[in-house]
Amino acid sequence: MSRAILAVDAGGTSTRAMVVAPDSTCLAETRGGPGNPRSSAIASQTIARVSHEAIDAAGTSPRTVVITMAGLVSLGGAHPETVDALRAVGVECPVRLVTDLHGIYFSATDAPSGAVLLAGTGATAAFFEQRELTSLRDGLGWLLGDAGAGFWMGREVARAVAAELDHRGPLTSLTQRALNLVSSSSPTPPRSNELAAFIAWAYEGRPVDLAQLAVMAAEESPTDAVAADICSRAASHLIETLSSLPVPHGSPVVLGGSVLGPTSPVGDIVRDYLGPRAVHARDGLTGAAVLALRTLGSTPDRSRIEATRPIAAIDT
Amino acid sequence: MSRAILAVDAGGTSTRAMVVAPDSTCLAETRGGPGNPRSSAIASQTIARVSHEAIDAAGTSPRTVVITMAGLVSLGGAHPETVDALRAVGVECPVRLVTDLHGIYFSATDAPSGAVLLAGTGATAAFFEQRELTSLRDGLGWLLGDAGAGFWMGREVARAVAAELDHRGPLTSLTQRALNLVSSSSPTPPRSNELAAFIAWAYEGRPVDLAQLAVMAAEESPTDAVAADICSRAASHLIETLSSLPVPHGSPVVLGGSVLGPTSPVGDIVRDYLGPRAVHARDGLTGAAVLALRTLGSTPDRSRIEATRPIAAIDT
Repeated sequence: MSRAILAVDAGGTSTRAMVVAPDSTCLAETRGGPGNPRSSAIASQTIARVSHEAIDAAGTSPRTVVITMAGLVSLGGAHPETVDALRAVGVECPVRLVTDLHGIYFSATDAPSGAVLLAGTGATAAFFEQRELTSLRDGLGWLLGDAGAGFWMGREVARAVAAELDHRGPLTSLTQRALNLVSSSSPTPPRSNELAAFIAWAYEGRPVDLAQLAVMAAEESPTDAVAADICSRAASHLIETLSSLPVPHGSPVVLGGSVLGPTSPVGDIVRDYLGPRAVHARDGLTGAAVLALRTLGSTPDRSRIEATRPIAAIDT
Repeated sequence: MSRAILAVDAGGTSTRAMVVAPDSTCLAETRGGPGNPRSSAIASQTIARVSHEAIDAAGTSPRTVVITMAGLVSLGGAHPETVDALRAVGVECPVRLVTDLHGIYFSATDAPSGAVLLAGTGATAAFFEQRELTSLRDGLGWLLGDAGAGFWMGREVARAVAAELDHRGPLTSLTQRALNLVSSSSPTPPRSNELAAFIAWAYEGRPVDLAQLAVMAAEESPTDAVAADICSRAASHLIETLSSLPVPHGSPVVLGGSVLGPTSPVGDIVRDYLGPRAVHARDGLTGAAVLALRTLGSTPDRSRIEATRPIAAIDT
């Protein structure tokens, strides 16, 4: 009887599934549209279809399934519709739904205890003990939290640009970069044309759209003092969030998300702070496969999984 | 021929008009619904009707009209529809539209040069030279600016509450007060029931609704250290905004808005900073009348205007 596993990453923009043999050979990998119940009404059906295609292509039924799903906490930690949809396409083995933080953690480390610090548009820190997620910090959204993440940085860029144009803040190279996004508008004295246009631009989109400005702070740092200060304060917030977790000294901290990427100045500060404890996340789908293989008592080999995957894994 | 004036305050919730004689006696005062073009499609008609009623009750036609209108800057500094509507009800004299900041400034001082610092939900500072508004700062809205005002404070309260419930921030008496606003919700481990409920509450309304939490910071200060810190930082932001204006040393600064009210801890810090330069705003409608009387060469007497007004003036 097969001892293969099925790993699924149910993301907001795509769903990915792979079947992996006990020796960590990837037997098949498939993709589909959005698989997150918060962003798609047919998420469960998509997960089931993409899973069925992977099982079909592998030619073997899985003995266990691990699905990573962002926002699972706000869904109450479970999603029975997804399990039902998998049953309906013939998946009869145990199905475990875990957060995207599980995928990130297990993509990068074998340590039973350690932390994840994820900073994309939002920021979340999680602590794993004996391979279970036991504490969570932040991830409270743009209005209440996500301190130091992409929206936070983008809003700081926007406020710095507005302050310069309003003659309240220091000159910054961020201003010209931000104004390049903005179409011109009629001046409304005593405000300048540029300020009026920037105000109109900022309020016409959704607030979270300001996250797109975060990259400007990263790119203008350290040459521009205002940009460097934004990056430095972002890193302080992220370190503070991480430090509120009871992570034992020396445990690994897996870093994920664009704000903590290998070339990010915010990531540099956090890596300097963490020293050798910092580990970079790999693809969360690999993490889901690692978790599933462990469930069956196999010893996962991340490099072998990734080397045998037919689709390049560049989603971290 | 009459040398009376008509003063109108076109606000977002009500429109008020009064006719004042050259000796500063209020001859008639009327009220109606919203008169701000940004909040009412029939604002111009309301202004014209309320004005017509005041002129009718006074039994004399004005020689000049001054209308204060919040948001006039974002309307491009003019609103021809309002002038047309007044012409349609028989008002033939000159009509001048000015910002609500004019009303606030002239409600409190005769100095030709000085500043206004207004902090309600938003924050705006303005500089008057020779009785003309020549510079404006902030007032950029909750996303880009309004540093230190009601929304800013309310958001800081919300973030402090969320941080405590998320085990990231210090204990604060603000938490229990904020949770009193929130209905209970299902817990979503590893988050607490309270945190889940507070997140749901904060995101179900409009972001600006968080401004309602500002009063909690004022009331819990100085006993609660977190609340006191929010008030202190709010005052610093407001002082910084004011300080970016080229106000000559010794010029008056007229303080308006609930955040700078007589019993507000934020107001206390700003008043300590300003010393005798601080002057409290009175009703902006009185300020509009003062400006109109000056136009005709009369010497306005604020106390007489207010003493003779039939409707109590408590709108500052």
